[in-house]
Parts: sequence; structure tokens; C-alpha cells
Amino acid sequence: MPRKPKIKPPTPQSRRVGYAIVGLGELSVEELIPAARTSKESYVAALVTSELDKGVEFARALGLKDSDVYTYDDFEHLSGRDDVEAVYIVLPNSLHREFITRAAKMGKHIVSEKPLGMNAKDAQKIVDVCKKAGVLLMTAYRCQYSPHHWAARDAVQGGTLGRVKLLDSMHVQVEDDPTVWRLQQELAGGGPLPDVGIYSLNTLRFVTGQEPEWVFATLHQPKKDRRFREVEESVSFMLGFPEGVTANCHTSYGAFKTDTLRVMGDAGTLLMDPAFTYEGLKLSIETKEGTMTPSFPAYDQFGLEFDHFAQRVRDGKTPWTPGEEAVQDHVIMDAIYESAKTGKVVKLKSVTKKDAFRGTKPTLPSEKS
Amino acid sequence: MPRKPKIKPPTPQSRRVGYAIVGLGELSVEELIPAARTSKESYVAALVTSELDKGVEFARALGLKDSDVYTYDDFEHLSGRDDVEAVYIVLPNSLHREFITRAAKMGKHIVSEKPLGMNAKDAQKIVDVCKKAGVLLMTAYRCQYSPHHWAARDAVQGGTLGRVKLLDSMHVQVEDDPTVWRLQQELAGGGPLPDVGIYSLNTLRFVTGQEPEWVFATLHQPKKDRRFREVEESVSFMLGFPEGVTANCHTSYGAFKTDTLRVMGDAGTLLMDPAFTYEGLKLSIETKEGTMTPSFPAYDQFGLEFDHFAQRVRDGKTPWTPGEEAVQDHVIMDAIYESAKTGKVVKLKSVTKKDAFRGTKPTLPSEKS
Amino acid sequence: MPRKPKIKPPTPQSRRVGYAIVGLGELSVEELIPAARTSKESYVAALVTSELDKGVEFARALGLKDSDVYTYDDFEHLSGRDDVEAVYIVLPNSLHREFITRAAKMGKHIVSEKPLGMNAKDAQKIVDVCKKAGVLLMTAYRCQYSPHHWAARDAVQGGTLGRVKLLDSMHVQVEDDPTVWRLQQELAGGGPLPDVGIYSLNTLRFVTGQEPEWVFATLHQPKKDRRFREVEESVSFMLGFPEGVTANCHTSYGAFKTDTLRVMGDAGTLLMDPAFTYEGLKLSIETKEGTMTPSFPAYDQFGLEFDHFAQRVRDGKTPWTPGEEAVQDHVIMDAIYESAKTGKVVKLKSVTKKDAFRGTKPTLPSEKS
Amino acid sequence: MPRKPKIKPPTPQSRRVGYAIVGLGELSVEELIPAARTSKESYVAALVTSELDKGVEFARALGLKDSDVYTYDDFEHLSGRDDVEAVYIVLPNSLHREFITRAAKMGKHIVSEKPLGMNAKDAQKIVDVCKKAGVLLMTAYRCQYSPHHWAARDAVQGGTLGRVKLLDSMHVQVEDDPTVWRLQQELAGGGPLPDVGIYSLNTLRFVTGQEPEWVFATLHQPKKDRRFREVEESVSFMLGFPEGVTANCHTSYGAFKTDTLRVMGDAGTLLMDPAFTYEGLKLSIETKEGTMTPSFPAYDQFGLEFDHFAQRVRDGKTPWTPGEEAVQDHVIMDAIYESAKTGKVVKLKSVTKKDAFRGTKPTLPSEKS
Repeated sequence: MPRKPKIKPPTPQSRRVGYAIVGLGELSVEELIPAARTSKESYVAALVTSELDKGVEFARALGLKDSDVYTYDDFEHLSGRDDVEAVYIVLPNSLHREFITRAAKMGKHIVSEKPLGMNAKDAQKIVDVCKKAGVLLMTAYRCQYSPHHWAARDAVQGGTLGRVKLLDSMHVQVEDDPTVWRLQQELAGGGPLPDVGIYSLNTLRFVTGQEPEWVFATLHQPKKDRRFREVEESVSFMLGFPEGVTANCHTSYGAFKTDTLRVMGDAGTLLMDPAFTYEGLKLSIETKEGTMTPSFPAYDQFGLEFDHFAQRVRDGKTPWTPGEEAVQDHVIMDAIYESAKTGKVVKLKSVTKKDAFRGTKPTLPSEKS
Repeated sequence: MPRKPKIKPPTPQSRRVGYAIVGLGELSVEELIPAARTSKESYVAALVTSELDKGVEFARALGLKDSDVYTYDDFEHLSGRDDVEAVYIVLPNSLHREFITRAAKMGKHIVSEKPLGMNAKDAQKIVDVCKKAGVLLMTAYRCQYSPHHWAARDAVQGGTLGRVKLLDSMHVQVEDDPTVWRLQQELAGGGPLPDVGIYSLNTLRFVTGQEPEWVFATLHQPKKDRRFREVEESVSFMLGFPEGVTANCHTSYGAFKTDTLRVMGDAGTLLMDPAFTYEGLKLSIETKEGTMTPSFPAYDQFGLEFDHFAQRVRDGKTPWTPGEEAVQDHVIMDAIYESAKTGKVVKLKSVTKKDAFRGTKPTLPSEKS
Repeated sequence: MPRKPKIKPPTPQSRRVGYAIVGLGELSVEELIPAARTSKESYVAALVTSELDKGVEFARALGLKDSDVYTYDDFEHLSGRDDVEAVYIVLPNSLHREFITRAAKMGKHIVSEKPLGMNAKDAQKIVDVCKKAGVLLMTAYRCQYSPHHWAARDAVQGGTLGRVKLLDSMHVQVEDDPTVWRLQQELAGGGPLPDVGIYSLNTLRFVTGQEPEWVFATLHQPKKDRRFREVEESVSFMLGFPEGVTANCHTSYGAFKTDTLRVMGDAGTLLMDPAFTYEGLKLSIETKEGTMTPSFPAYDQFGLEFDHFAQRVRDGKTPWTPGEEAVQDHVIMDAIYESAKTGKVVKLKSVTKKDAFRGTKPTLPSEKS
Repeated sequence: MPRKPKIKPPTPQSRRVGYAIVGLGELSVEELIPAARTSKESYVAALVTSELDKGVEFARALGLKDSDVYTYDDFEHLSGRDDVEAVYIVLPNSLHREFITRAAKMGKHIVSEKPLGMNAKDAQKIVDVCKKAGVLLMTAYRCQYSPHHWAARDAVQGGTLGRVKLLDSMHVQVEDDPTVWRLQQELAGGGPLPDVGIYSLNTLRFVTGQEPEWVFATLHQPKKDRRFREVEESVSFMLGFPEGVTANCHTSYGAFKTDTLRVMGDAGTLLMDPAFTYEGLKLSIETKEGTMTPSFPAYDQFGLEFDHFAQRVRDGKTPWTPGEEAVQDHVIMDAIYESAKTGKVVKLKSVTKKDAFRGTKPTLPSEKS
């Protein structure tokens, strides 16, 4: 039974990594800032927002000083704040490159929400900027830090399911509000694919440790629905993994919330349903012995991300999901859009190395002393 | 909670439709013959088999006379048996046309296991033969007679899920035995697609009442596995339904038993898991109110098929799943194989009429007086 | 996923144990007779019924001769039937003793439905009669022959749950028809307790292998409901097992079908829900690792009873659930009624031996060669 | 799918009810203080603790001043704090009366954790003190403020289940640490019964709206387990509700976490499993139509308590679960202990009025504008 994760007893902030949260949207307010409180190694030291008043109110609620709040114009004032070692970018996708570049120039380490950029080229430039500036860059793929998804990966790669044969995933939800930036091509770079479909894509790559060799896709953009003037409503795509393993995926902004991941092997079948929610994840593994639903101590997915990045800031090693991991997702998403446009299979560059784009493995809660 | 369906109190056989079961494989012995006992309107009057001894043993167990057993060579002796009004064909796919033709010539009405033929052309010839002979032909799509699947169809077409957006289905299982006829191209006409994948295809067409406009598919046939010398191990296919609704499907003889059907609408999501088993079907429908898992009085899927066909034999009307329904599946499966071969999308002839290939609706158990 | 159990290929009847089914009620017709077909070691050789016509119809459906049907008056004619080695008593409880006595005098081995008698004294006389006649007597406690319940017992006794602390079970259903014999005290000997509550009692004794030391009970018999003029509607009872382990139980003829069994240990909790149905049993075991729902090959609970008794008839050993097992249930049920009447705890004679009233362990399907 | 409840945008504190949290144990730190942040009508204004240093750290994390932290000795200093209108007592049970009395004398309104006192007499004195002081007193029965439990109550009282016949509940968990105050009779007033068993008792009273007429109980206190030198390990109890409705309950500190509630009616059965956790509650209602699992917008159980009490502080009306509600639980728990001691049924004073000890109904989240 999931419990609220324990809030760690407050420890001296001097030993923890201070973050500036850049962007005070729903995700920041409801998830990231509360999650930072569950981390022993991170804390929120500053807020960056377009709405100074709102920022000040949140600052006060967080026990920050009014002077810990910055506008986007004042962003560079953070350069004098040595206690702010990292920034967490939670902005519309089209602004990621600008703010990551500005942060890198200040020498701040960076966590960015997914998708990293607008497309593969944009994402690659982001990676290059950070490399040049000598700062760490992590893409916030929270499912790659969760005990549930690692247990799924262990079952897939450890042989519990036998030889993997087929994959299936869907991540769909209804986006009601026609005015959100996520429905504007110039701000989002696409529709449900880079926002929610990316979970299926990224998590399938993570649990298998492999890269697809080709994609096929079709998309639907209804003419009469004003929400979908600029971006697609749905994308259905097929990913061709090595040795004939095929993944079927659906993503949509037009269908009732559903998010699942299935891996079918010759000796068992693994299901996550729900697979991508912030809470209530459920994993079950069926073999001829029966069905096992493992349980896990309570944890906060965002808190584990904070923990991991704080450790990398301290040791200087590459995060498990660096910018390169995100570039690869963009390469594949670019191919998915191309396939949907041309109606043809699009081949991808072959990548045979396992976990080719990943860095230092995260420490799972159960492995901690 | 499912119960064994009630065995109907025996009624005079003269009022019921007598069947000859042609082929005494596992399906006949374990499902069809026991199921016939649950039907008030049908009974097993004769057995046709290559193994006379085995047939005689079963006949005795069924309370039939030794003389009720026929070899394939003696099949035509049934023409003198007025009590045998119908035959039920349970033979390797490649033999369907021959035996259906021979039965039609005797004026017997025919139920055939799926797939009806080896391909669309073969299936069409079967339909033509029966039409010419003036006998009824029904394809044994048991899921089109089950209360669970009708409840799914009602939810899809009645608006419970809102507007349907995306479909997903898989039907995979492990075929271990390299010697079975199902793995021989000349007997089966294909691998898992016409045997188990057909359930996804046929049931998606049934619950939507619509026909796909295009298909895309990929298949995998591992070179070193002697089971798959002639037929594929797996097929993954995408079906393009009207108005941008896309279905993702997997079928395989190489993966642990999994069979599901999902329909995603903008107001709800419907899941059948398992979707295609003989027993233990589970339907759940999630909307913003919650998740509803309807319950049904116990029934036998095969028994309901017997009931429906017996009624059609009595009233002469077209069965709900006539040969034409099967020809359409073959047309689509032919296109799936073509797409897998060419790597390209294959367009299908547009069919706009709802339930275009179906006949008289079956009476569900709950509708009976 | 449960499948219909395989019907065994018919083997020569001379090697199998022939049964006369005594009483052609719903249980016989819907469960026992179909189940006998799943047994390799048993078969139905004769029917005994008050309604000769009905019997003849069933006989014909079963491939028996009209002369295989007997009335209750003709029961002793079976003494000349050497092929009928056993009788299966499926009559109102008040008739058990008479028919078991008559069968024992003919030297037939006996399976009786539960409850064995009307009370402990009546049941003991039945045991004595069979002992004196030198025939085997088995009480048809089907849950003691099912792989699901044996797996529960293994988890309880094998330490998966740690030390057992508390037990809980309920078996309730609605009895609608005020005219059934089960609601008549003189025919049934009680209400829901000896009919459905006995499942909780018997299965708790089985999974723990222990005997209760005391009982407390309360019953409800509504005055204005004509169904419950003679017998109680509900009984709630508490069983005190050794070392402070307490079981809470409910049974009723007035509540919507619910049947569960729970065993709580200090390291895990076991749930069967449903626990007592003919099909669809579900077992799950939760420990700190997660929840395991084991799967089992398909089986028929009644078929396994037939198998076990046929083996005992062949080897002459005491069945796993002999008459003594049933006497003990009656002793406890007598105490439950006494407690409900007096409002006081009733102590039971201490029994420290494990499985004190049981015989030869059944062979589970998975242990068979 | 449950989501973290939304953190309400900070509103001016002057309009909200300020609380002093008295006691900084696990419940305060992990649940209450975070929950207060989800309330639009309450906020934490002060902390009272024996450990000043710890209190100061938490105060800083909460954005409070160091001077907002008080020791138990300084408790009366709160009398000068007009912004602190209410106190929330989260202390060992034996200290409730003292601190409630001290708070009442200051004119503060009071929320107290359950159990309210050490026994019925102690609880009644608490009620009297508050009444005399003219302050509001609410017992923190969080399950009486949760949408899941209100939906259960609505199903029970609204007829969905037909006529209620039987009740069943258990709440057990392992208490590992022999040193906790909960295992000391003088601090806790009992063992698992007043701590976790009270959930079964209180929630059964809540969903039925009725009061038991008698109790029977047995308890187990193992001699060799040093955890249970002073208090019992387990209690099993039966509650006799009006019209023959009986409830079976188990509570324990020695068994793996299990918490369920079942209500059986003649037309349906309702199950909550888990029934009493802070998160992940699951309600399902089975009738002949099937099984419905309603879904609810995310909420925080503790936050809803804060909301309700803040409204009562503003309007001066009696809270839904005032002290009297807790006195009644104590009366019944006293009877349970007496029954366990004497081995006899203990009768309770008849209470026929519905919701006899409750005040103003809470506004459920869905009813808010």
C-alpha cells in the first residue's frame, strides 16, 4: 500500500545542493517543490518566475526570503548566488535552449524537463552548450529513477520473462483547454508525442536497454477541433527493436487517461498499469507460476530525481539520463513525425551498445544504507 | 462469479437440430461436444473422424450408437441421415473447402471453424459453393455470440466511452510443438495471424461495427527456430479505421499467453483482459465515475453458437457471422501479409455500411424469455 | 486463466470404479455427473431417483441403459450390480443415515454430501454403521481436494505467513425459495450453518490442521420472514483455536453471495476471495515482497473427489475426509447452536493431534505422473 | 488514479484559522503539517514540542519564526497569540486530558487525535471541560471526512446493498518496537484496540449511523513476548447492532498490515480494502449488475479534517465528530475489555437515534462550489 513518502528531517542546508526552480507552473508547485522537501540532498533556494507577486507568495510559504525570487530578466542575478548550484528548468519547450544556455554560462548545473528541446537538432545544441560550459545536464525522465520501473527493467533484462518478443505501450489523456502552450506548435514542438508519448518511447528504451532500428507512424489531426489547429490529436507508432521485437504505441490528447506498458516474453508477461502516473504505479509479472505484484517502500519520484542529480553535482559524474538520452528520443520522435508525414517506414541509425546514451546508474532507495 | 453453465434438461431430440461433428481434435472433444449438451436446440447426432476406434469410444461416451461414427471416406453416408441437419467443420484450414463443399452437396447446413479458408479467394469460393447449394454457412466466431463482447460493443457504440479514438488488442500464446499442422503453411495458410490474431481483427471489427481502410504490418520469422520454418512467429499490425481511429495489434506463437482488447474514447476506456479465452472473460469500463465490471449469468460460448445456428436452420435466415464475414477477415489478413512483405501501407476497399458483412443478430441469454 | 478441465479420453469402464448417484438434484445434474466424466478412475454406472422418468432421460443422455435407473424403493436391487462399487449420496440431510445404512448393508462404499448427518450423534451413528459393515465412508468436502486450498494450507503451515495470528471467513448467499427442503428443520437439521457456514468451519480446520477449543455464536431468525420460520437466517460465530488464534465467521441465507477466507500471520496475509465457489477460486498471498496470485492447471473439484475415493476403493485405505472428519464438524456446529441459544461461550474437548480426523492424503494433480 | 492533492495557492493568513500543532511525532511531521498546506482555510501558526531544537528546525522549514515554537511548559504563552485560534493535540493518549484542559482554559478550540481519552470516564471529563470553557472540541476521526467512506455510507444507507445483514472489519498491523508509548498501558490506555481497532468500531458506527446493543470479545496477550507485557496483542470482537445485524472485528499489533471493511446486504456487498490507510483507499460495491469501483478526485484526508474544523471555528457549530462521538467509542471499548475479561456478553445502553453523537455534516469536496 503506497504511503506518502517520509519527509526527511531538515538537515543543514549548507550540505545540500540548492536549486533555483525556473518556472512556477503546476508541475513546479504541485510536484517539484513538495518533492524537494523529501530529499536529504537537495533544497529549493530560489524561484524564477514571470509573476513576481506569485513568486513572493510561494517563497514565503516555503520559508524563503522575498529576495530569493527572481524574474526571467533578473535570471543572471543568480550568478552571484553560490548557494544556488543548480537550476531546474520547468518552462515551455521552446524556452529550454535559451534558459539552459543562460544557466550554463553562469556555471550552474541543469536539470531540464522533458522533452529537452524542440527537435533533435535543438536538443543537440543544448547538449553542446552544456558540454562547452562544463556543467552537468540531466533530463528529468522520472520513470528512469523509480523502483517500479527498475523492477520492470530487472524482470525484462534478468530473464524472468524469458526471451522478450513484443512490446506495447500507450499514454493518452484529454487536453481540454485549447489555449495551453502545449497545443501551440511554436512553443511545444509537437502535440501529445513529445509531451506524453515520450514516456512510452523513453521507458521502452529504458526497460530493454536497446534502441529501435526503424519506426512507422500515423497521426490524426481533426480539422474541426480548434484544439488541434497546430498539433496532432493522436499518434500511433510502431518501433522496430533488434531481433524482430516490435513495440506498438499510442499517444493522444483526445482520449480518457490511460497509461500502460507491457513486455511479452516467451516465459512471462509484464504489465504496468498505470505505468506513468506520479503515484499509484502498479507492476505485475505473470509467469506459469502465477502473477506477482511486488510492493515497494513509499517514495517520491521527483524526490529521487533530485537525489540523483545532487549526487552527480557532488561527484561530477554524468547523470543516468544526460542530455544525450534526450537527443536520442528527439531523433526517434523526428523519425516518427517523418513517417507519419510520408506514410513510410523510417530507418534509424543502428545503435548496438546497451544503454548507449546513459550515465551513472542511480542508487535505488532499497540500496541505500 | 462464473459458474458452470447449466446443462439443459434433456428434451426430445426430434425438436432439436442434429449436428455431425467433423474432426475429433482437442477443440471438438473438450469444448464443442460438451457445449452441445448446454444447448436446448442442438445435439450431436454423429461424429466424423479419421480414427474410427477413437470415434466409437467417444460415441459410446456420448450415448451414440457405433453406427453414428463415420470416416472421412464415408462422409457422404450422412446424406441419408435426415436427423443430421448440420455439420460442424473442425479440420485443418486447408481441408475446409473440400468438406464444406461435400456437405453443401448433401444439403447440410454448415458451421465452420475460423479461419474459413486459406485466403480471401479460397474463402470466397466456399461462400459461393454454399450459396449455390442453398445451404446456410456460419463462421464460428464465438466472440460475436458472447454477452461479454456484446456488452463491450454496446459500450463502444452506445456512447459510454464518448467518441472512440484509439484501439489496441493483442493475442499471443506459445506454440511449443513443431509438428502441429498449425505450423505448416500448406495446412494452415499462415501462422498465428489466421489462428489467434484473427480474434483481435474480428473482434475490433465487431465492437466498432466498422471496417478498416488501410493496414500496415511487420512480421518476424526467426531463422533458427525450427517451429517457424514455414510460418511467421509474430505479426504486429496497425489497422486504420474511419475518422483517424487507429488500432494497434500484436499476434504471436512465441509469447506467453496474453489476450486483451482496449477501446479508448474521449470519455472512457474499455478493457477486456482476458479478451478471448473460453472462460473467465473480464470486461471493465472506466469513466470519470469509476470502473464498472459488469457480471453476467454463466454461459457457454460454444453453446451460444450452437443455439444461434440452430435458430437460423429453423428460420432460414442468414447467421450473424456468415461466410461473408470471414471473407472480409481474409481480405484484411491478405493485406496484412502483403504489407509485411512490402514494408508499405496497403489500402483496403472502403466499406461504409455498418455491420456490412453480418446477418441476423443473435439473441443474448438475457433477452430470452 | 482457468480453462474447462480436460475430459479424459474414455478408458475401459471395467478398470474404473462405477458409482450409483443417489438423488438427481441440481448438484448431481450440473456438477457431479459432468465431473465424473473428467475422472479417469470413476464413472457413473447407475442413477437412483424418486422420479423414474427424469432418471431415464438423464440415463439416455449419459449413454446408460434405462435399466440403470432405480427408484428409492428399488435401491437394494443395486446389490446385484458388481459394477456399482460405490454410491454417492446427494439427498436431503435427514435421509443420509437411512441411505448410507442401506448402502453399507449392500457392501457398497459410500461418498456422502456434507453435512454428513443432522447432528453429531446422528453422524457418529453413520460412522459406526459403515465401520461395522466394513465399507469406506468419505464426506464430500471438496475444498479439501482442491489445489487452491492445498496451496493455502501449504502457505499457512509452511511458514510463508510467519506465525498465524487471526482467521476470518464468511460464506453467505441468498436463499429465495421458502419451499426448499434446506429451510425445513426436520430435513436439513439447521439453516445456513450446516449448508454453507460449514465451508468456513471445515476449511479453517483444514488449512490450520488444528481444532478449535471453544466457540461463541449469535444467530438471527427474523420473525416476519416466512423463509425463516424453522431455521435461522444468519449465524455469526467465533472459534478459539490454540495459542490465542481466533477465527471470526459469518454465514447467512439472507445476504448477497460472498465467500472469503483470510489467514493473518505476522509476516503475511492470505486471502481467498472467492473461497468456496465451484469455479473461479482466487488465492493471493501478500508479504512484504508483494502480492502473489499463484496459478494452477485447470481442474474440476468434484472430479478430484471422485479420483480420490476411487483410489481408496482400490487400496482400501481411509479417505482424507472420512466420516470422523464430519463428526467433528457436527460437534462444533452443535456447540455453535448451543452458544447461540445460551449466549455463552461453549468449550470443546481439546484435540492436540494435527489433522486428527483425517486419513490418507490426496494426490494433487501436479503430483501425478 | 489518485494524484497528490493540489496545494492550494497561498491566501492571506489573516482569513484562515491558525493552528498550534501540539506534539511533533511522526503523524504531525509526515501527515498533519503537510496536510495543513492543502487547506485553504487553515494554516500552521505555531508548534509545541518537548524538543525545542527540533521544533525550531521544522519551524524554519515551514516558514515560521523561531518564536513560533513553544515547549510544553510554555504552552500557556499561546494565550496571547490571537492568530492561534485552535490547537491540534497529537500526544500520547494519557496526556490528552491535561493539554485539552489547558487549551480550553485559554479559549482555544481543540482538535484531538483519537482515542480522545483513556476510557469513557476520562473522555467524558474532556467533553465536560470543553463545554464549560465554551470551546469547540473535535475528535480527529479522519475516515468520517473522506469521500470514500461517505460513498460507502451512502451505499449502505441509500439502499444500494438492499437491507443490511452482516458487517465485518479488521485492522491489524505489526508493532515491532517494544519501547513505544503505545505499548505502555499508562500512556495508551490499551493496546491495538484504542489505536487501530477503533477504526473498525468507529467506521462501522459511521456507515450504518447506528449504535451496537451488545458486545462480545476475546483478547490474546502472549506471555513470552516482551512487547505485550502491559497491553494485549490482539482483540477479536463482535458487535450486536439493531435488528440482528452482527459485526465481526479483529484488531492486532501482531499481524501483517490488513485493513478492511465489508457490509453485506441482501442485494449487494460492499468492500473497502484497504479501508483505513492514509492513501490508496479502495471501495467496491458488488450487486447483481456487476462490481463498481467509484473514483474520486484527489484529496488529503487530514486536509479535509482541517477544512471542516476551520468552518466550525468560523460558524461556531458542533463539528461532525465532537467529543461525544469519541465518548461513545470509549463506552464500547470499555465494554469490549470487560467482555474479554469476563468471557461474557456485555449489554450496552440502547441508542435508537441515528447519528446520535454527531454534529454538523461536513461538506465533501465534490459539493464545494
